Amino acid sequence: MVAPTRADKFSFGLWTVGWRGRDPFGDATRPELDAVEAVHRLAELGAYGLTFHDDDLFPFGASHAERQRRVERLRTALSETAMVVPMVTTNLFTHPVFKDGGFTSNDRDVRRFALRKVLRNVELAADLGAQTYVLWGGREGAEYDSAKDVRAALDRYRESLDLLTTFVRDRGYDLRFALEPKPNEPRGDILLPTVGHALAFISTLEHPELVGVNPEVGHEQMAGLNFMHSVAQALWQGKLFHIDLNGQRGVKFDQDLVFGHGDLMNAFSLVDLLENGGPDGTPAYDGPRHFDYKPSRTEDLAGVWDSAAANMRTYLLLKERTRTFRADPEVRQALSESGVTELRSPTLAAGETYDALLADPALESFDADKAAQRGYGFVRLNQLALEHLLGAR
Amino acid sequence: MVAPTRADKFSFGLWTVGWRGRDPFGDATRPELDAVEAVHRLAELGAYGLTFHDDDLFPFGASHAERQRRVERLRTALSETAMVVPMVTTNLFTHPVFKDGGFTSNDRDVRRFALRKVLRNVELAADLGAQTYVLWGGREGAEYDSAKDVRAALDRYRESLDLLTTFVRDRGYDLRFALEPKPNEPRGDILLPTVGHALAFISTLEHPELVGVNPEVGHEQMAGLNFMHSVAQALWQGKLFHIDLNGQRGVKFDQDLVFGHGDLMNAFSLVDLLENGGPDGTPAYDGPRHFDYKPSRTEDLAGVWDSAAANMRTYLLLKERTRTFRADPEVRQALSESGVTELRSPTLAAGETYDALLADPALESFDADKAAQRGYGFVRLNQLALEHLLGAR
Amino acid sequence: MVAPTRADKFSFGLWTVGWRGRDPFGDATRPELDAVEAVHRLAELGAYGLTFHDDDLFPFGASHAERQRRVERLRTALSETAMVVPMVTTNLFTHPVFKDGGFTSNDRDVRRFALRKVLRNVELAADLGAQTYVLWGGREGAEYDSAKDVRAALDRYRESLDLLTTFVRDRGYDLRFALEPKPNEPRGDILLPTVGHALAFISTLEHPELVGVNPEVGHEQMAGLNFMHSVAQALWQGKLFHIDLNGQRGVKFDQDLVFGHGDLMNAFSLVDLLENGGPDGTPAYDGPRHFDYKPSRTEDLAGVWDSAAANMRTYLLLKERTRTFRADPEVRQALSESGVTELRSPTLAAGETYDALLADPALESFDADKAAQRGYGFVRLNQLALEHLLGAR
Amino acid sequence: MVAPTRADKFSFGLWTVGWRGRDPFGDATRPELDAVEAVHRLAELGAYGLTFHDDDLFPFGASHAERQRRVERLRTALSETAMVVPMVTTNLFTHPVFKDGGFTSNDRDVRRFALRKVLRNVELAADLGAQTYVLWGGREGAEYDSAKDVRAALDRYRESLDLLTTFVRDRGYDLRFALEPKPNEPRGDILLPTVGHALAFISTLEHPELVGVNPEVGHEQMAGLNFMHSVAQALWQGKLFHIDLNGQRGVKFDQDLVFGHGDLMNAFSLVDLLENGGPDGTPAYDGPRHFDYKPSRTEDLAGVWDSAAANMRTYLLLKERTRTFRADPEVRQALSESGVTELRSPTLAAGETYDALLADPALESFDADKAAQRGYGFVRLNQLALEHLLGAR
Repeated sequence: MVAPTRADKFSFGLWTVGWRGRDPFGDATRPELDAVEAVHRLAELGAYGLTFHDDDLFPFGASHAERQRRVERLRTALSETAMVVPMVTTNLFTHPVFKDGGFTSNDRDVRRFALRKVLRNVELAADLGAQTYVLWGGREGAEYDSAKDVRAALDRYRESLDLLTTFVRDRGYDLRFALEPKPNEPRGDILLPTVGHALAFISTLEHPELVGVNPEVGHEQMAGLNFMHSVAQALWQGKLFHIDLNGQRGVKFDQDLVFGHGDLMNAFSLVDLLENGGPDGTPAYDGPRHFDYKPSRTEDLAGVWDSAAANMRTYLLLKERTRTFRADPEVRQALSESGVTELRSPTLAAGETYDALLADPALESFDADKAAQRGYGFVRLNQLALEHLLGAR
Repeated sequence: MVAPTRADKFSFGLWTVGWRGRDPFGDATRPELDAVEAVHRLAELGAYGLTFHDDDLFPFGASHAERQRRVERLRTALSETAMVVPMVTTNLFTHPVFKDGGFTSNDRDVRRFALRKVLRNVELAADLGAQTYVLWGGREGAEYDSAKDVRAALDRYRESLDLLTTFVRDRGYDLRFALEPKPNEPRGDILLPTVGHALAFISTLEHPELVGVNPEVGHEQMAGLNFMHSVAQALWQGKLFHIDLNGQRGVKFDQDLVFGHGDLMNAFSLVDLLENGGPDGTPAYDGPRHFDYKPSRTEDLAGVWDSAAANMRTYLLLKERTRTFRADPEVRQALSESGVTELRSPTLAAGETYDALLADPALESFDADKAAQRGYGFVRLNQLALEHLLGAR
Repeated sequence: MVAPTRADKFSFGLWTVGWRGRDPFGDATRPELDAVEAVHRLAELGAYGLTFHDDDLFPFGASHAERQRRVERLRTALSETAMVVPMVTTNLFTHPVFKDGGFTSNDRDVRRFALRKVLRNVELAADLGAQTYVLWGGREGAEYDSAKDVRAALDRYRESLDLLTTFVRDRGYDLRFALEPKPNEPRGDILLPTVGHALAFISTLEHPELVGVNPEVGHEQMAGLNFMHSVAQALWQGKLFHIDLNGQRGVKFDQDLVFGHGDLMNAFSLVDLLENGGPDGTPAYDGPRHFDYKPSRTEDLAGVWDSAAANMRTYLLLKERTRTFRADPEVRQALSESGVTELRSPTLAAGETYDALLADPALESFDADKAAQRGYGFVRLNQLALEHLLGAR
Repeated sequence: MVAPTRADKFSFGLWTVGWRGRDPFGDATRPELDAVEAVHRLAELGAYGLTFHDDDLFPFGASHAERQRRVERLRTALSETAMVVPMVTTNLFTHPVFKDGGFTSNDRDVRRFALRKVLRNVELAADLGAQTYVLWGGREGAEYDSAKDVRAALDRYRESLDLLTTFVRDRGYDLRFALEPKPNEPRGDILLPTVGHALAFISTLEHPELVGVNPEVGHEQMAGLNFMHSVAQALWQGKLFHIDLNGQRGVKFDQDLVFGHGDLMNAFSLVDLLENGGPDGTPAYDGPRHFDYKPSRTEDLAGVWDSAAANMRTYLLLKERTRTFRADPEVRQALSESGVTELRSPTLAAGETYDALLADPALESFDADKAAQRGYGFVRLNQLALEHLLGAR
């Protein structure tokens, strides 16, 4: 099996390997990790990119000089390793001032402060050559239905996005925004809770072309949704600007496990979609394969790097498995028998009108009971996928 | 407490009171209910409207004459009772031919048959004066990730909607479509699983202005989402064309309980949104209050009518409770202290640019730690809502 | 409406009002709360008891002198307020040493350390007159199936409980243990995840009579289970030794909202069970009504006390509502028609054998189809409950 | 890869391959399957056993002669194929008379009828040589909290079980009962919702030794619980009398997919537990590997048999993968480093008392901070499991 290379475009958040293991019921179990060490270790493991929140790199409220110093250290490390920064994001959730949100806080001063925090960090992102700016609005939400005027909140959300896109256009940055949906946690209910809600919101913006989504495996699965399906819809709408890969074991708190260490079948079909376009056969996504996971709190630093490597290794293994799956003649035949490929054929013939459809004699005499006897062979198809996944074919 | 009147715009699906109690593990427990009796009983109880799937009114594959006969019986009943048909929909899920879906079946013949079935029923809907045509794509989906090319399926879905809106425009019908999202059941995963995904899809259509959503309480809650939030986003996007009211007790199979017999606090805030616009104070929705529920399988016909009445009675009770909530001066003060009303103020001042924001001296000296000390009083606000709901204030 | 009194037996965890608002994505939003102040404020609000983890009262690793000092301060406060300590528990989850659990850690030294930590605190609990010692094994579990030998872990769990009960018996303490189940969070899967699993485990112990459960509203609901049902089973098995009241809005992370600020209908039926024994009519539980909640992170100290008061106020309101429900003649008639009361009649007649049952001529000629026509009237009954809950009858 | 043989003890419910595809929203998609054909086809595919509900074999209310005729046809088929009937069960859910349950129906006549139905079928089960009699109480529950007196219902449940065990003892049948828990569906909440609740209930019975559990993959996962964990607890309590294997994709309606076509990692660890005892290394279960699944409604009869074969094939593949996993020296080393094997060591030394523990000087000087630095290597261990599962090692 091949090792990860830069061509695989694997990137990691600084906050992932740097997570110290503090959870709602427990204190940190690991020491702080220096950004420079993170860059070097990730590069050695085969990653090509590092991403970060502003507050990952320099402390909240750091002086200009301190910010500059930290940025320079990072730049040096990047240049030493040829690592890139494909994405940057803002922390609008850790400091208590954001306890009711950033862009949609009920406190206007906080909203202004949040917007400015993002603007300043967008400048840094552009300066570092990032092409995607992620916005995870984890605090934009409520625990109680009366506590948030959702429509007003969406007005403020839109106001913020419209300002940000205008800013980026005016400045000529080659940067697009990606909204990261999540249904809940830390808020009881988060606004724009799914990929769908975020895509819908984007359609209302002033510059929708500059805003897409950054779906995260576990977030969509926390709502019991099929992650691959949501990614496919995002791709279909031309909006998969970035992706967060990790693992989640069902509808519960946000686990941020290693990619594949959750719903493995869905991870297989996700990689199949990204790498092969599913049944389409051509890659559907060319951006960073970004891991947004947490090395379990039980691990020491060696475990951190093991887990980082595990993400990439699992991705490559799944990629390999999907290739044999798509190449297998039996699979191709099964796909054909199941009608999977036929779905690409338009329902109407070229130029056919509804009047023609209504008058189609074949439909007038259509024997529904007979047509219903067709077996689609979906179970067999899924079993073929499972056996390829298991390396058993 | 006042009884329901026509002005309340309560409507019921013929399939709701007509549900015979067949479930995945059990046979029907009630006899068939005649449509004419349903119209009369619902009218007596205070409803103003009846809705139906084509197959509720006349059997699948009925002859033209049989269809006409059934429609005429319905017309007579409507005219006897002054009941209206505000909404009509199609059954693309019961007959085995739709086992892999209608618009997005992997079988093109089935897709064509499905489209024609809808077109024919749209004609009837328009003829009966319905203003909304609901499309619940309960079979549009898959159990297995490889069994459905999601992007191709969305192409076909769009093709269908574009044909339908063209049809309605050409014919000059005063009819709009409303997509009804559901995350799963009967399919393992259904396409357009949430209100968000449906709204996003609509933004890609040829005539988006003719297509909105028909959110159902239980469907959004089956994904653990806040139903009121999703309805608020639909309203915010101008897309709440219709609504399905019922009850659901958490993330499980589709229960279709009586409205309010599920998450009662969320039902309260939903009615508050529809009737009062939440904190806005003006009604947000003027369409039918449509109950899409199932009288429990344990009930006889008397229980059916009791349950129908219970839906309306609960809605009116909640409406009353939300009115006292909004009128209570202590609530108004609490809303103000919580900043709920302030969220309507734009984050930027009129004409303020990002440059002005970045240069704002108040932000330069913003003391985040101090600002973070603000208590939002959300728990108190929620307790006020709860006490109004309980009729305890 | 009456205010809470000592007779209501309301108690609070020191860690509840003392929660500083640190969550997985954010820092503390509130200052530390002194235990003495907590006692006084809670007493003023009408509570009768305070509970705590060892580490709530004195820091992990505190010297003997420091422990004594803190305990004495508490004793003074208790005596000033006539507050009691009905329950004490151990913190086996915050310190990193417990990252793989306490009683079932894969590290034997940690297991020994954990056991000793509990033993020492049991001594304090007995000394303070507590009658219940709660064991929440929040870290006893795993994220990965291979990482924990579940059967070996249950052996160690049993070993620990057997030691603890022996200790308490030998010392002559008037103290019983109560296991607090939770399905997940902070571990991916926690051992003894539901009330059922804990009750089952207890049946294997050396001194099962000394061990019961401490069910928590939100924990059981995080598994989508009906909390009232689980409490009823615990009562039925004579094992409801203590109870944790709070609120949870569905299957998601542990919210610890105010009691009633979640599934309100289930809170109503829970209070009905505790206070009235449900349809039985006699109280089913006489222990502390213990609130294990978290004042939302958005609240300041005023909000903390508002939220503490809200718990008690909601409980008393629900108690009042259940009383009118049970007293309503229409409800009694509905219960009778629904057969709810009949379920208390044994299925077999006194002394009837299976042979007699098999030979019963009434069964031989039993007309199942006819018997199936009975309507149970459950929807009407639930609507009556809902209307009583809403104060509408 | 080897084909299934009788030694693998694979069994199928007659209702599984015989499922006609009727679901809550759709009619049957497949013709009826004759029991004799089912026996022959399953035998050819490698199964060793067939199981059934009474009503699967002969219609509800069938005459004695009809019952006998059907039983004889089955006997012949069994003898032709050397298939066995390891388990039999009762249908107390399809007929409308059971709409409020069987053993715990609010109607005493129904309870009596249900008990008799079971008794009669137990006679048949014993006669056919079945060793396990499964009781799935799918209708024992409620939608509404006030509609069922849970404690009274548990009294009736116990009364029924006590009668059944007495009957079996008196008759000298070599038959044990296995309760099959399920959290919900078809009832809103089902009594004894999890493996834990059922085990707890069993501990209260007159003859607990004759009653165990029959856990079903999907049922436990519908509550978001770790199925392997629950099976491990059942084994630990000596109560795994039977097992239902299938697949479920998360917290939603009961899917009954092919085994492995759900949470694949958990299926791997389940097979590992059953076949290897997990880390223990010795098989933990010797009973039938019973598939309780539904061939998807989209399949024709060919798909039915493909899906039946897929269950067995997946089980054997996973068995093979778990064997290489357990045999891998790197895995053994990782298990040791993770302390998984150490958990078998008692926490106390042989003969050690709590006094000795309290006085242990090693604990007095225990450096918790230092001990907390241990890395457990759980992620690496899980990655090893995943790679074995994928056939990549």
